[in-house]
Amino acid sequence: MRISELSAKSGVAIPTIKYYLREGMLHQGEQTAATRAEYDETHLRRLRMIRALLEVGRLSVASIKQVIAAVEDESLPTHRVLGTAHYALSPAVDPEQTEEWRSARTLVDDLITQLGWDITEEAPTRDELAQTIVRMRQLGLSIDLAPYVEAARRLVSEVEMDMIPYDGPRDAAVEAMVLGTVLYGRVLDTLRRMAHESESARRLTP
Amino acid sequence: MRISELSAKSGVAIPTIKYYLREGMLHQGEQTAATRAEYDETHLRRLRMIRALLEVGRLSVASIKQVIAAVEDESLPTHRVLGTAHYALSPAVDPEQTEEWRSARTLVDDLITQLGWDITEEAPTRDELAQTIVRMRQLGLSIDLAPYVEAARRLVSEVEMDMIPYDGPRDAAVEAMVLGTVLYGRVLDTLRRMAHESESARRLTP
Repeated sequence: MRISELSAKSGVAIPTIKYYLREGMLHQGEQTAATRAEYDETHLRRLRMIRALLEVGRLSVASIKQVIAAVEDESLPTHRVLGTAHYALSPAVDPEQTEEWRSARTLVDDLITQLGWDITEEAPTRDELAQTIVRMRQLGLSIDLAPYVEAARRLVSEVEMDMIPYDGPRDAAVEAMVLGTVLYGRVLDTLRRMAHESESARRLTP
Repeated sequence: MRISELSAKSGVAIPTIKYYLREGMLHQGEQTAATRAEYDETHLRRLRMIRALLEVGRLSVASIKQVIAAVEDESLPTHRVLGTAHYALSPAVDPEQTEEWRSARTLVDDLITQLGWDITEEAPTRDELAQTIVRMRQLGLSIDLAPYVEAARRLVSEVEMDMIPYDGPRDAAVEAMVLGTVLYGRVLDTLRRMAHESESARRLTP
């Protein structure tokens, strides 16, 4: 298909498609004339993935580039690639040099050890969770992580991991993992806010 | 305390504090001299709340202003205020004029009816969930919402709603609801990504 059709089908404007081509986020089409290239379903799929990560996942273009680089890097074993793609999904968090921070980070590290979770020392999720705990403590919010650990564990091990095609091509597995993490995460967050509205209405309407 | 101490305790730079004061996001201190004002614990708490919503919740300053306006508006009944504050937490989503969109939106509306959830027609979460479903369908991802509904329902009704002090002052209830929604949401999302990493490692490491 021509770039105009690719744009119509994906809902991504032509100048934006050209930007993704220049940035290497989208692979080049097949050149059929000096100023004409032909695109196929793989281009459409990649554009839909970028759009979902931008709109639904609210990732930055820089993070999406990291994710795509991980999907495409064939030199790494699948497990490593999943890790790299995953880490690109985590927001950057600057650890603070305070006693509060060290205490929260120790709580996170101890939790991971107790759960027996297989998470690298460098995983950015460790500092991300520590930051949230510091902010909650400063605001006097109570922190019982157990029900959240249980909900996350169940959704991931009983639902989400089964949707990843481990036996197929490596890039399909990585793509499924990234999209699943982002899109199911948004589903869960939206449903939580819906449940909040409904429960508040019930408890407060006279 | 002076503004310098307020800055040190909150971790928010003085020019940023002055910006929040000008924008009405932070209430004025008590003027003790022409160029000197005295601040107290209520100012510190408000700054910590803003910081948590910015850093952990990744809300925009415009959204935070809406949330604060809802917290402070004493003319509305609590249930309405909770709704307004809640809606400010939802990202803006433009409905698309497509058959795909209408089908997803119908699915969302039917789900809410089936669950018997008390959610207004105007709730932005309806379009937010519809958007995610459209993107998932375009990418060929399967959608079984049931386990997510169940996880959201349990966390909200069994854990999160019990932390809101309905009997105290109205602004305390609204603040607790907003912070709980944002901070516990981040806790859950981070733990899900941790569980993903751990499960991937287990299933893929030789």
